[in-house]
Amino acid sequence: MTATRESIPARIEEKAIKAKKAAKRLRLTTEKEKNEALFTLAEHLVTNMQYILDENEKDIEAGRSKGYDAAYIDRLSLNEDRVLDFAKGLKDVASLEDPVGETLSSWTLDNGLKAEKVRVPLGVIGMIYEARPNVTVDAAGLALKSGNAVVLKGGSSAIHSNKAIVSCMHDALAETAIPQDAVQFIESTDRSATKELFKMKEHIDVLIPRGGGSLIQEVVENATVPVLETGVGNCHLYIDKDADTKKALSIMINAKTDRPAVCNALETLLVHEQWLQENSAALITALQDHGIQVHGDEKALRHIPGAKPADESDWRNEYLSLDIAVKVVHGVEEACDHIETYGTKHSEAIITENPETAETFLNTVDAAALYHNASTRFTDGGALGFGAEIGISTQKLHARGPMGLKELTTCKFIMKGNGHIR
Amino acid sequence: MTATRESIPARIEEKAIKAKKAAKRLRLTTEKEKNEALFTLAEHLVTNMQYILDENEKDIEAGRSKGYDAAYIDRLSLNEDRVLDFAKGLKDVASLEDPVGETLSSWTLDNGLKAEKVRVPLGVIGMIYEARPNVTVDAAGLALKSGNAVVLKGGSSAIHSNKAIVSCMHDALAETAIPQDAVQFIESTDRSATKELFKMKEHIDVLIPRGGGSLIQEVVENATVPVLETGVGNCHLYIDKDADTKKALSIMINAKTDRPAVCNALETLLVHEQWLQENSAALITALQDHGIQVHGDEKALRHIPGAKPADESDWRNEYLSLDIAVKVVHGVEEACDHIETYGTKHSEAIITENPETAETFLNTVDAAALYHNASTRFTDGGALGFGAEIGISTQKLHARGPMGLKELTTCKFIMKGNGHIR
Repeated sequence: MTATRESIPARIEEKAIKAKKAAKRLRLTTEKEKNEALFTLAEHLVTNMQYILDENEKDIEAGRSKGYDAAYIDRLSLNEDRVLDFAKGLKDVASLEDPVGETLSSWTLDNGLKAEKVRVPLGVIGMIYEARPNVTVDAAGLALKSGNAVVLKGGSSAIHSNKAIVSCMHDALAETAIPQDAVQFIESTDRSATKELFKMKEHIDVLIPRGGGSLIQEVVENATVPVLETGVGNCHLYIDKDADTKKALSIMINAKTDRPAVCNALETLLVHEQWLQENSAALITALQDHGIQVHGDEKALRHIPGAKPADESDWRNEYLSLDIAVKVVHGVEEACDHIETYGTKHSEAIITENPETAETFLNTVDAAALYHNASTRFTDGGALGFGAEIGISTQKLHARGPMGLKELTTCKFIMKGNGHIR
Repeated sequence: MTATRESIPARIEEKAIKAKKAAKRLRLTTEKEKNEALFTLAEHLVTNMQYILDENEKDIEAGRSKGYDAAYIDRLSLNEDRVLDFAKGLKDVASLEDPVGETLSSWTLDNGLKAEKVRVPLGVIGMIYEARPNVTVDAAGLALKSGNAVVLKGGSSAIHSNKAIVSCMHDALAETAIPQDAVQFIESTDRSATKELFKMKEHIDVLIPRGGGSLIQEVVENATVPVLETGVGNCHLYIDKDADTKKALSIMINAKTDRPAVCNALETLLVHEQWLQENSAALITALQDHGIQVHGDEKALRHIPGAKPADESDWRNEYLSLDIAVKVVHGVEEACDHIETYGTKHSEAIITENPETAETFLNTVDAAALYHNASTRFTDGGALGFGAEIGISTQKLHARGPMGLKELTTCKFIMKGNGHIR
């Protein structure tokens, strides 16, 4: 009968229910109210910068004492510039067009019934993510602008930072037309807390996992709430026999080395045998100059000194490092077949000056983004001109590629009659 | 080492893999090839009508011997007209616009990279359904026209009919540019066969369950393949105090009695207290004239003679019969709250002459289709003018409401550069 032993599931469900109630009110908020709220959120984060940085320091210390590596600590770390970026990001989202209320189509039936398909918010978005505290701000901003409530479940390593950010956001929302309950934060760092969210189909409309492959797999395998799958990118570059050597090498180096740890980075090079025979010296120099370690098939090993033999896992996994798998192929069909088998439907590129070969590749390969003579690194909401993104979808339902505000909406049909019956 | 003991899972996976290979070829087929194939399918079904009807007779006999009721036997039964309807349906699908290849948007980035978002097939559709053999034809037709392969898993009670139909379709496809493997049929009537499909994420892009609530629940709860949820419709009609009595009664009767067993039929009447007081005599007459059994809340019981008391299950479940739940409310807000709690986000209607009240209802209620002064029976691909539908989505991701050809597609981004790097 006391509240002290209230269970984790009950507390999490309570938050999801609050989010659902807030979502109902959010449907009726105006663009102006939402934009004002985003600016207020931005101000509060800047005003409370020292508090956020102090709390972040606790996470960093805990991370160091647990022996996390430098890259992990870096992802976790905030500083003045990063907090200012939070505020800028929120203001940028405010400047994006409001997707809600857009008439997607309208028509009149033969019987005179007027039909309209309009864009409306999804409702409640469940966001499950790992170390980066910026996701807390980005997800809240995108959710609110698209008229959705959000339930945030961040990683335990960023718990102090996330709590501080959410606390500032709640204070800010109290000054706005947006209900505070529109942003819910699951404080429990227990993994079972995440699992609770998986089944809350009655209260949560979609789950978006952002993080490593194992997190995403766990959500996909266990959730009954619909999932928008993001992120894993085993991206390929096919260098055709008709490739321009300069383009091929500069795109290969850019896609592999610009940011090796991101999902649109290159992982496997498929190279036409003839091109390789003619250009192996230039390729070897480029790889060596950039410290790239090759894992090659038999033929690649013959051409590339220092290459290690590749096995099945080299074709299948993301390195997210300066390693690259290299397979020698005999044409665009073989390249497409390899991608069909091993690709994760993220970003795939072909380098060729032959337009027919390019068309075959672009029509055959099944992925979110396909590139002809360009780097896979462009698969990104910002780079493509969509504004902020909540993740990059690698599934085919609902959204594919970078997901922005529109991808956080659904539609409804509104039919107006005058006593119409069927 | 022998094939005789090959397991059900292995055989089902083999079919899914064949479908995936066929899907790759389907991406490159033209609209003309697809339409010719649909016409050939239609011809073969008509030519083999007697064979199909003979096989159907086996299902009917088996159904009778199992004691299935008349309505079930009717859903299972084919006759000449129904087979002719299959053929007509396929030709109608051929006449619909091909959604594949449509440019959804195109733009040029500041750096000159040309971007295009184009519509492409989903890939492989897994269709899990119950007694009606027409789904076998409809699903194959819609899948092929939208460039998809399909894996069909029909109910065991229609196994002979479905096998006969698929056998005719395979013979037909052999004469066309569409690979025979594009239509796969799971012959096993074992329930474990269905479960195998749930997990084949590598080969199947989407599962569409069509049937009763328990089938749909089973798929949603167990599938790791993304699901397009269809069908359960706990639809409400709210009669406001400012309702036109004639419209209210005729729409109520139409929505309840036109086809009580379908998902867009009316299940719960929410009636404004004032309207009820003024119109109870007319309402009672209308209900009695149509043999409608009322399950009412306390206030409704006072006004409607012969009504049974309603409990929680009356608000929550679909009757799919001439029963109706009736709750007396005090305004549009209370009506919206009730729908928020008990609705299944299918079709919801308001009857009022007050435009403001109508706007409140249309903006507040979260459902696929909302009606002002019209019957919920219009939520149907044919009635709305979309052509054939593969089901009515009651979820919010990807598709909402009637799903036609476009809903069986996804998109991809095609970027054309000239050595572009980031």
